[in-house]
Amino acid sequence: MSELVTAAMVVIGDEILSGRTKDRNIGHLADMLTAVGIDLREVRVVSDDETAIVEAVNALRARNTYVFTTGGIGPTHDDITADSIARAFGRPCGYDEKAYRLLEEHYGRRGIEFSEARKRMARMPEGAEHIENPISVAPGFRVENVYVMAGVPAIFQAMLDNVIPKLRTGARLISETIPSPLPEGAIGGPLGEIQAAHPETIIGSYPKYQDGSFWTEIVVRSRSREALAAAVEATRHMLEAIPARQVVKG
Amino acid sequence: MSELVTAAMVVIGDEILSGRTKDRNIGHLADMLTAVGIDLREVRVVSDDETAIVEAVNALRARNTYVFTTGGIGPTHDDITADSIARAFGRPCGYDEKAYRLLEEHYGRRGIEFSEARKRMARMPEGAEHIENPISVAPGFRVENVYVMAGVPAIFQAMLDNVIPKLRTGARLISETIPSPLPEGAIGGPLGEIQAAHPETIIGSYPKYQDGSFWTEIVVRSRSREALAAAVEATRHMLEAIPARQVVKG
Repeated sequence: MSELVTAAMVVIGDEILSGRTKDRNIGHLADMLTAVGIDLREVRVVSDDETAIVEAVNALRARNTYVFTTGGIGPTHDDITADSIARAFGRPCGYDEKAYRLLEEHYGRRGIEFSEARKRMARMPEGAEHIENPISVAPGFRVENVYVMAGVPAIFQAMLDNVIPKLRTGARLISETIPSPLPEGAIGGPLGEIQAAHPETIIGSYPKYQDGSFWTEIVVRSRSREALAAAVEATRHMLEAIPARQVVKG
Repeated sequence: MSELVTAAMVVIGDEILSGRTKDRNIGHLADMLTAVGIDLREVRVVSDDETAIVEAVNALRARNTYVFTTGGIGPTHDDITADSIARAFGRPCGYDEKAYRLLEEHYGRRGIEFSEARKRMARMPEGAEHIENPISVAPGFRVENVYVMAGVPAIFQAMLDNVIPKLRTGARLISETIPSPLPEGAIGGPLGEIQAAHPETIIGSYPKYQDGSFWTEIVVRSRSREALAAAVEATRHMLEAIPARQVVKG
């Protein structure tokens, strides 16, 4: 059985915390990591503030296999991610020669000024490795176990597609979903007993509220196909044994 | 001028980290707090794990006026928020008498068993104050500056509506949005100078990518109407002075 591989995410941006932009990257990263068997353990959304970014990145990189960041790598004054990551690792931050040439050529070919602002996008911590950006050229980068990517969803997704195949992946968590018309309160007790009897599984219970009624989605997860099947069977038996009159509002 | 009021959020739930459920509460809380002049400073998404919840809540409540949590207050074994909050405050956790009676009557009236699982929803840290739940009765609660609410969006929103009027609110951050057909790289330099010259404002620059082209949304924020107007005017002048040929792809 493969080793457990864990990850954390740092979403960088005042616009998410003000509500002006609704994040779409957390859900996408969660989906992608789950698909390849990496456990996303924690997400932090922090403001465009160097101290906040450094604190979050350093706390999370110490205790996870990988850290992924989104946001703050563009050309404007509020794009401070490269400097913050450099500070987190105690490395100098400056123009990366390869990124500088890449951007210089890109803008040169199009007759666009390679402005001081655009040059900012070539800034990286010393020794960073590029993450290719097929959409707008300016690369993301990796320093040790920290992957620094764009916040614009289309670019983030394209960068992540280049990163995922290089990651060490874990045993995939397989899951089975059991919908139940019963509200959580009717099944919580026996479900807890099933969880206790099947320690190799993680049983989640998610209340759903629709048209004035509660129902429940039970999700059984495991890295072992056998353990999953046993817990699912126990859950189905349990649900069948509960009288139908429990299907009620509230 | 009012004092600065800050907040943090803790989203509790394995289902968000696995990607199975896409969070909708971060954006809603951010919008509501911005509207009343409270600065949301940080959000953490943590798993259904007591140590993780305690660590996040204790770190954030020490440095913010308010902390808001969502998720994990239902009747099943994976609903461990009440116990975790109690541990964070070093208080015992047990049945809250008022909540117990409320739920007992609610289920009694409907002829539904008040099961051990449903009784879990009456558990709260000692001394907690209720947050009313107009949808499914089981209350959220407040301990000192920490507000504990449901994860189901409809219930979270209803609880939050009961909480917001009781909060100390700050001077509202007012904002003005200036769309620009120019990509960030064309305006980043002068925009940084405008930010430096207008320290009472926060100028954000958000790259937008659509149909193969980049454009930029510039958002100027301030607690002072005069400072906002001055920075907006400077930004508009700057944009008008940039040659139109800069409107390009990439």
